[in-house]
Amino acid sequence: MDPHRSFDLAPWSVGWSAWTDEAQARRESVFALSNGHLGWRGTLDEGDPCAVPGTYLNGVFEVHPMPYAEDGYGYPDSGQSVINVPDGSIIRLLVDDEPFDIRTGRLERHEQILDFRTGTLRREVEWTAPSGRSLHLVSERLVSLTHRAVAAVQYEVTALGGPIAVTALSDIVANEPLPEVHPDERVQGPLRHPLEAVDRFATDRGATLLHRTKGSGIGVAVSMTHDLGDGDATVVVETSEDLARTTIGAHLAKGESLRFTKIVGHEWSASLTDAALRDRVEAAVAAGGELGWNGLLAEQEAYLTAFWSIADVRIEGAPRLQQAARFALFQVLQSAARLEGRSIPGKGLTGPGYQGHIFWDADSFVVPVLSHVAPDAAREALRWRHATLDDARARAEHLHLGGAAFAWRTIDGKEASGYWPASTAAFHINADVAAALVAHVRVTGDTHLEREIGVELLVETARLWMALGRWDLDGGFHIDGVTGPDEYTAIVDDNAFTNLMAQQNLRGAADAARRHPDRARAFAVDDAEVESWQGAADAVVIPFDARRGVHQQSAGFTEHARWDFEGTEPGQYPLQAHFPYFDLYRKQVVKQADLVLALQFAHECFTPEQTARAFAYYEQLTVRDSSLSASAQAVIAAWVGHLDLAMDYLTEAATIDLDDLRDDIDDGLHIAALGGVWTALIRGFGGMREDADGLSFTPRLAAPMTGLAFGIRVDGDILRVEVSADATLYSLEGEVPLTIRHFGREVVLQPGDPVRLTTPPLADPGPAPTQPRGRAPREILRSGPVE
Amino acid sequence: MDPHRSFDLAPWSVGWSAWTDEAQARRESVFALSNGHLGWRGTLDEGDPCAVPGTYLNGVFEVHPMPYAEDGYGYPDSGQSVINVPDGSIIRLLVDDEPFDIRTGRLERHEQILDFRTGTLRREVEWTAPSGRSLHLVSERLVSLTHRAVAAVQYEVTALGGPIAVTALSDIVANEPLPEVHPDERVQGPLRHPLEAVDRFATDRGATLLHRTKGSGIGVAVSMTHDLGDGDATVVVETSEDLARTTIGAHLAKGESLRFTKIVGHEWSASLTDAALRDRVEAAVAAGGELGWNGLLAEQEAYLTAFWSIADVRIEGAPRLQQAARFALFQVLQSAARLEGRSIPGKGLTGPGYQGHIFWDADSFVVPVLSHVAPDAAREALRWRHATLDDARARAEHLHLGGAAFAWRTIDGKEASGYWPASTAAFHINADVAAALVAHVRVTGDTHLEREIGVELLVETARLWMALGRWDLDGGFHIDGVTGPDEYTAIVDDNAFTNLMAQQNLRGAADAARRHPDRARAFAVDDAEVESWQGAADAVVIPFDARRGVHQQSAGFTEHARWDFEGTEPGQYPLQAHFPYFDLYRKQVVKQADLVLALQFAHECFTPEQTARAFAYYEQLTVRDSSLSASAQAVIAAWVGHLDLAMDYLTEAATIDLDDLRDDIDDGLHIAALGGVWTALIRGFGGMREDADGLSFTPRLAAPMTGLAFGIRVDGDILRVEVSADATLYSLEGEVPLTIRHFGREVVLQPGDPVRLTTPPLADPGPAPTQPRGRAPREILRSGPVE
Repeated sequence: MDPHRSFDLAPWSVGWSAWTDEAQARRESVFALSNGHLGWRGTLDEGDPCAVPGTYLNGVFEVHPMPYAEDGYGYPDSGQSVINVPDGSIIRLLVDDEPFDIRTGRLERHEQILDFRTGTLRREVEWTAPSGRSLHLVSERLVSLTHRAVAAVQYEVTALGGPIAVTALSDIVANEPLPEVHPDERVQGPLRHPLEAVDRFATDRGATLLHRTKGSGIGVAVSMTHDLGDGDATVVVETSEDLARTTIGAHLAKGESLRFTKIVGHEWSASLTDAALRDRVEAAVAAGGELGWNGLLAEQEAYLTAFWSIADVRIEGAPRLQQAARFALFQVLQSAARLEGRSIPGKGLTGPGYQGHIFWDADSFVVPVLSHVAPDAAREALRWRHATLDDARARAEHLHLGGAAFAWRTIDGKEASGYWPASTAAFHINADVAAALVAHVRVTGDTHLEREIGVELLVETARLWMALGRWDLDGGFHIDGVTGPDEYTAIVDDNAFTNLMAQQNLRGAADAARRHPDRARAFAVDDAEVESWQGAADAVVIPFDARRGVHQQSAGFTEHARWDFEGTEPGQYPLQAHFPYFDLYRKQVVKQADLVLALQFAHECFTPEQTARAFAYYEQLTVRDSSLSASAQAVIAAWVGHLDLAMDYLTEAATIDLDDLRDDIDDGLHIAALGGVWTALIRGFGGMREDADGLSFTPRLAAPMTGLAFGIRVDGDILRVEVSADATLYSLEGEVPLTIRHFGREVVLQPGDPVRLTTPPLADPGPAPTQPRGRAPREILRSGPVE
Repeated sequence: MDPHRSFDLAPWSVGWSAWTDEAQARRESVFALSNGHLGWRGTLDEGDPCAVPGTYLNGVFEVHPMPYAEDGYGYPDSGQSVINVPDGSIIRLLVDDEPFDIRTGRLERHEQILDFRTGTLRREVEWTAPSGRSLHLVSERLVSLTHRAVAAVQYEVTALGGPIAVTALSDIVANEPLPEVHPDERVQGPLRHPLEAVDRFATDRGATLLHRTKGSGIGVAVSMTHDLGDGDATVVVETSEDLARTTIGAHLAKGESLRFTKIVGHEWSASLTDAALRDRVEAAVAAGGELGWNGLLAEQEAYLTAFWSIADVRIEGAPRLQQAARFALFQVLQSAARLEGRSIPGKGLTGPGYQGHIFWDADSFVVPVLSHVAPDAAREALRWRHATLDDARARAEHLHLGGAAFAWRTIDGKEASGYWPASTAAFHINADVAAALVAHVRVTGDTHLEREIGVELLVETARLWMALGRWDLDGGFHIDGVTGPDEYTAIVDDNAFTNLMAQQNLRGAADAARRHPDRARAFAVDDAEVESWQGAADAVVIPFDARRGVHQQSAGFTEHARWDFEGTEPGQYPLQAHFPYFDLYRKQVVKQADLVLALQFAHECFTPEQTARAFAYYEQLTVRDSSLSASAQAVIAAWVGHLDLAMDYLTEAATIDLDDLRDDIDDGLHIAALGGVWTALIRGFGGMREDADGLSFTPRLAAPMTGLAFGIRVDGDILRVEVSADATLYSLEGEVPLTIRHFGREVVLQPGDPVRLTTPPLADPGPAPTQPRGRAPREILRSGPVE
């Protein structure tokens, strides 16, 4: 069986029928449940077989020394790595003293289904033990979107062929092994058994384990209880340092079932006392227990119904794409729903990839989507950035810069990257955070947030740009020696993306300071400083190659030698694994959208002709060795009228995880790429742009998509957009009229009064851009609907 | 007592009278004896007190893993570090069973003198033990310049106040502790006890220890014997795994002496059998023993007499400078005299600094001096580079480049640098090696060497440049993304030094291929390839800032922000220890001569006006955080007529180690900086240049120097140059006439017929260039002669 076969097609779920040994880690990632605070990978109840066990609490990590062959000033001494918190998902089963293990006996049926509307992972198994006893197992688990600390499992085992004695061992297991992250024992050692047992408590139906990480000193409490209903099962509770076990036994006649609910609570804190942690986690379990499985499930469904009522993107004519788009949105929601003071790691809470670190892609690819589909979550991610400002100011000071410099990769806010050309030098992260904040305030109308955290964040990042910038003899403002989004180019002058984002940052700071003069004064901003930001923003230089008539990704970029794409074999991608940075950096080869991302993020700075020309130019150079590229390419391809190409990029973004296109989701999903699916659909095909003149749309479809419908937030109101082949219907839900532009034409929308506007004919976009040999997107959906 | 006080002034030695506890490591470095194959630091005979014990064999090292926080393609897996070979210098002494230790009892006298004409380190001690017994100790040691494997100690102890029983324990000690080189146990662990005992043998007067390095598998044999003359001392020999001991006892009446000679032999090999190693080392000891102390000393003096007869640089009016210049030449000679198949580590064999690695400075700063003063040594260093060509070709191939890419830092020829922006990217090393070869052939007339190794070396390095280069639309040849000599700038396009050296490399390869067409064919060179080198060389682009009228260190360099020198505190130098590379790289701040080094190495490419302008410009930016800078600055300062400034830079180069100006010679001397002293004198004040028109001079003196005399090799002949205030006397020793230019005037010199030419008046050089705040050279000698 092909381990890369697709998941079962369905509009509101992804499922996998029949067991395959291959690619289990991939399914664990896809089937991961999370609420942004707590994550459980899609492992089997009985714990084995397992590829990558994973139970995470957002913010729980261990520290480790950072090894350098040659140390340098400003290199972080200490790294951070996500760890597994004690795993409460495990329910092992004995059948007449034979362990239930799908690798033994005969597996008649095995299904797992992740349901986007119930927010549950449902599993159904029929199994005959080597001894011949048969059972039917149905389990369903959820990580609650309404009770952030709570996960629950509904577990039911039924005797099929004849009577069986069943014993369920429902565990919390601490210090599960994780995949090794580094060959250096100094790094790996502290991560192998990171949790020290602090205390343990048994109750009549469960237990609580208290642990503390050895290096980072984080307290972790995991507690469980079991609801056995009114059956006559026997229950025994035991605890040891790294194990709490509730043993539930029952004798089942043929057709009889043992059924129980396991409620697991999770808490962590770096500052709370052990007693407080215990109280909190046991209170969470009690609250979950009070609701019971049905109550938790009902709340889960209600939460998701509300979410989908605005966030859903309906796609006609492309069922696989429809499924992928909902999967993407569901996982983006899961990564963030209950962040409360945290942000979104690159892999969410679906696996240990990137050591659980948070990067710029949270701010640039996820938060802007959340601002529309789950604004409370976006707000929390922005609050987390703001909460790291002290670390960011300290980092800036350590680098002898002004303002604040956010960590490139981190869990707790402190820099944890060991390769500065692709981290410290990538200062654009600071403008990315600022842009996410400005966009969020615009989308949600949350001026309270702007006052509370926005002014300070914009002021400090603006100050960083002033410290980083350089004036030329002609009054131009430059930013030298930085790294843009494209990780195959580094330490360059005037990266266009960075400069344009810095410009937005400076203007955003000036605007915010003028809107909230009292807050600005609180951060010692005076008029002269605001003027200096405005002046620098107006003077920002964007490199342009007049001879070739195209914008430069960075100064001199288009002069450099072109990568030898013809001489590069398919097996030599990703290039970074087969070529030295030295050679990648000095040639024209683009890992991921950079200038093209600038075309999206700073669209008002490029004419349509410049956009088309730049897109065509950089398409020839972009190899998409990063999952962050396809969505931006989809957006710009759609804008310049290459709709088939846009569809291919959209499809790639949408299937990158579901079809594991990059063969790299064993350690978690690409949350930012999944966020990019919404962006490709709404900004790309919907043509949604915001600029000084307000909101505008240029909606167009591409085969096989015959319809596209979505909702967005505008200043707290909801605008629904339904695109068909020849027209678009705009419906405003809210109180006040809204002016938009449809293909440049200004239209005033009245609440409750939908307007249907026709789509103008598509101007000939010219020949389709070409990509490097072998790096064109797959034409998965272009030829027509799948299935 | 000031530990930074100067050594005793003398024309042909450096000495230190009276013991000071401080700065012992510094004296151990200054007093190091070496012949390029074998090095002994200037430790005390009795082993304690000791700062950094050090006995080295050029090429003996241990491997260790290289730790990276984030690994990358092309990063070396394995590092290399020099280790201490078994130490045969130790002679401990007991006086009536009290250990002789200068920290106890009463030290009446303590002197150490390194003599440049005998090549010995002589020590004289008068000491009274706590018990009241007094002794007089005279020891003298040498590392033979004529017997590469042999060191010898003449040891004499005399009873002063009354009779004493003396016991000398003369040892070979293996696995002495070295200073820790890295905080990572993976790196440090293998270096702590690198030697595994293989075998040991005792004789009646000594012993042999055989060891093998655990990781690199290098066999090391150290053997000793003792010549006791016809005294009636008792002798006992013992050996254990890491210790061989010869115990020599005698009862001395007042005024009587125990006197003996210790001969120590050293051999190493990665391929020889243990038996062969033993044979060789014992044969070396036997040969040394046959000569005895007097014979070894006589050969040493004869060798040095021959050396100084050509190499000596006489300086009138500046005795401290005279001493420093001879010290520099002596240490340069010591680093290289008996290289035989090896090259010169950054610290020579005087300490464990830079882990014993060989860098480009050997080729650019030391070999060109050796070509004049010790051409056999220069030839060996070039042969070593050639011997690493297979590794260099493999490295180039691994980097997907053509030709050969020499290791940036290495002991065995394989790349051992863990930070590629300052190593792999510094491709200029390849042209530096090529330039050293071309210059050597020109100076020595050794066309045999050119045939034997030169053609291949030039061909392979030329191919590297062709692979690295890029053609622009106008037919210009560029080299992008490299790092030049200045380590405060990295990964730039068109580093002028690199481009100019590559140009020379390409031309040198084309010339050599035309001179030796059969050899060129052996490396598959055809006419088209030679034409392509010539074409690229002629098309090399050197960046010039037309607006500021000055050459750029690299493309765009002069546009960058200037470092905030005014805001930088004296304690913040060296900058790399206090500022991130990120900020250093993107600003105008120069660690070490780069464009200024190009002014020296490619002088024919700059007009006098361009040279003066560039020197003035880069003086404002150069902080000299590298020891490699002052000599080049001295050369160009002299050329442009700023003779006082040239004198200051010369003085800095000359005293950088003797006065420990950088407080960093505990782990060894700066051999390349010491080589630069000769360069500053002969190329700077002598104004010696070579170009297509032949050899030329523009000799001028600066206060306090009232005369300068030196000899150089020209095609195997000797040209002696004696500069006085108003004229220069040229004397040719050889067979054929030589045409030179003196201040542009062509003169034909006849052998045996000295010519005296007057010095034209110095044109006004304009205002003296300025340096960054606090970074001007000290005006040590400018005010007049010292003493």
